[in-house]
Amino acid sequence: MYSYDELFRIFSNHLEKQSFSHNPKELYEPIVYSIAQCGKRLRPVIALMACDLFGGDIKKALPQALAIELLHNFTLIHDDLMDQSPIRHGKETVFKKWDSKLAILAGDALFALAYDYTLQSETHQLPEILKIFNKTALQACEGQQMDLNFEKRKDVLLDDYLEMIRLKTAVLFGTSLEIGALVAGASKKNRQLIYDFGINVGMSFQLKDDLLDLYGMEEVFGKRTGQDILDNKKTYLFVQALSAAGPKARSVLLSYFHEKELPEKEKIRSLKKIFDELGIEKMTGNAISGFLNKGMEKLDMIELPEERKQPLRNLAQTMINRNK
Amino acid sequence: MYSYDELFRIFSNHLEKQSFSHNPKELYEPIVYSIAQCGKRLRPVIALMACDLFGGDIKKALPQALAIELLHNFTLIHDDLMDQSPIRHGKETVFKKWDSKLAILAGDALFALAYDYTLQSETHQLPEILKIFNKTALQACEGQQMDLNFEKRKDVLLDDYLEMIRLKTAVLFGTSLEIGALVAGASKKNRQLIYDFGINVGMSFQLKDDLLDLYGMEEVFGKRTGQDILDNKKTYLFVQALSAAGPKARSVLLSYFHEKELPEKEKIRSLKKIFDELGIEKMTGNAISGFLNKGMEKLDMIELPEERKQPLRNLAQTMINRNK
Repeated sequence: MYSYDELFRIFSNHLEKQSFSHNPKELYEPIVYSIAQCGKRLRPVIALMACDLFGGDIKKALPQALAIELLHNFTLIHDDLMDQSPIRHGKETVFKKWDSKLAILAGDALFALAYDYTLQSETHQLPEILKIFNKTALQACEGQQMDLNFEKRKDVLLDDYLEMIRLKTAVLFGTSLEIGALVAGASKKNRQLIYDFGINVGMSFQLKDDLLDLYGMEEVFGKRTGQDILDNKKTYLFVQALSAAGPKARSVLLSYFHEKELPEKEKIRSLKKIFDELGIEKMTGNAISGFLNKGMEKLDMIELPEERKQPLRNLAQTMINRNK
Repeated sequence: MYSYDELFRIFSNHLEKQSFSHNPKELYEPIVYSIAQCGKRLRPVIALMACDLFGGDIKKALPQALAIELLHNFTLIHDDLMDQSPIRHGKETVFKKWDSKLAILAGDALFALAYDYTLQSETHQLPEILKIFNKTALQACEGQQMDLNFEKRKDVLLDDYLEMIRLKTAVLFGTSLEIGALVAGASKKNRQLIYDFGINVGMSFQLKDDLLDLYGMEEVFGKRTGQDILDNKKTYLFVQALSAAGPKARSVLLSYFHEKELPEKEKIRSLKKIFDELGIEKMTGNAISGFLNKGMEKLDMIELPEERKQPLRNLAQTMINRNK
């Protein structure tokens, strides 16, 4: 079996062999730029890991892993534009480096290119791959819409928040694993289990992200502590706090949140104080462990020797233990 | 065989049976709105006509016709946002009625939904349908990018302009026909011929649009005469004029085009005068006939009884003879 690092290298080599430079060059430049931003390639690599887990030929899963990475990149380009985020992976986002029109169009073209790679599959598997792929794309849109809705709402229920991150983040983890398993010819039952593993790990991954924003070490996490608070982002911490707070703390939370006059440090300090009093760090930690454990249980249920599951188990653990 | 009106009704009935109202409703409302804008449904109807031409079962082509219409709607929503066009089919465009974020996201979701309908095909036909579909989507992006590039350029060559409208407009006509033919089981040769017919008719269709903007009757065409000139759009008329003009007229054209101080009526009048002196109306008419004839020749080459081709032939003629 392959390690994460080996699969990362194999995927990166495969990616480098593709050419995305076509005409008109104005359209393809941001596509090349966006694909070159080297994140952790988590999604394509876990697709390959799932294929490997079920004894599949990872070469056959490479185009699908690539399709997933392109789909992911497409959502990032459009989301960054909608959220007006200037920086990603330490570099300017597409709309910032070029303009909004280009971000729209390059995203659209990436979406079409992603579908092109799904075609590199065995014909009998194509309908199912496409079905999963379409559903995932649509759910990503739905999750982003919920996120946009939350911006306009004062109050957000915990369940709504969890549904939003499931759609916006977790589903793509689940799908990546499921498609890898599908290519390997895994049974329907096992595909469902690996998908559920991905959903739960994806949920804990996002909650960890929310947690690190305020409780991570700035030097390690690489983002400014409390940035989500300054951006008025309703993260799990805030939504959990609203849910746990009594009437008084609740009204302070609601009034502080969209506060614009307060100095930045003061705003972060005040909200963190309420979070601390409510024990939000611990609650979030518990939620993260809860999802992680649920994910691991799904992995347990897959009838394969334990050692085959080890790479995915380790990865999930690493994703949750990370400090950045 | 079916008439255009019959197929329009069959398609409309099929469309009405679909439900696009899901959650979050903020995302699906603009999708429902956009689909309900009743254009001529040209693209899906010609897909059905091509299926009918080759003796196929049009019921089988209905989901593909729908996929094409959704793809078309997706491009309209994003293009209207990029071009900042406030009105389409006499109603507010999506970005105007809601906002930019929603136009981006609803467009993306429509794109994914379009792919969902391609799945309603026979498995052995799916790879080919998808391949055509992806290519078309990508070419639409490329065409739109060329169009955006033209906005920034002073000079545009005739060939570049023709390539732009081929990608942005004509390809979707060709594809609609080809997919209809494919579903009917037409031969590769016949599919190519019907595609080429569509490309050429699509080209003449767009040139007619350019012509009507300045030489159509305002009351009939429904748009203000000369609107393209006021929008600084480099249409065929302008590009042809640049190509036909001597040095003096050319420099007047180039300097007038981005002129902002001139009263609107004066600007239209001045440019029209140059176009008239150069005989642009006639040249454009000739180009339209040229493409139309070339398209008809492709139709001639399809080895089927002439009466089967009559509906498509009539439609092409009607599209070009239109006054609006």
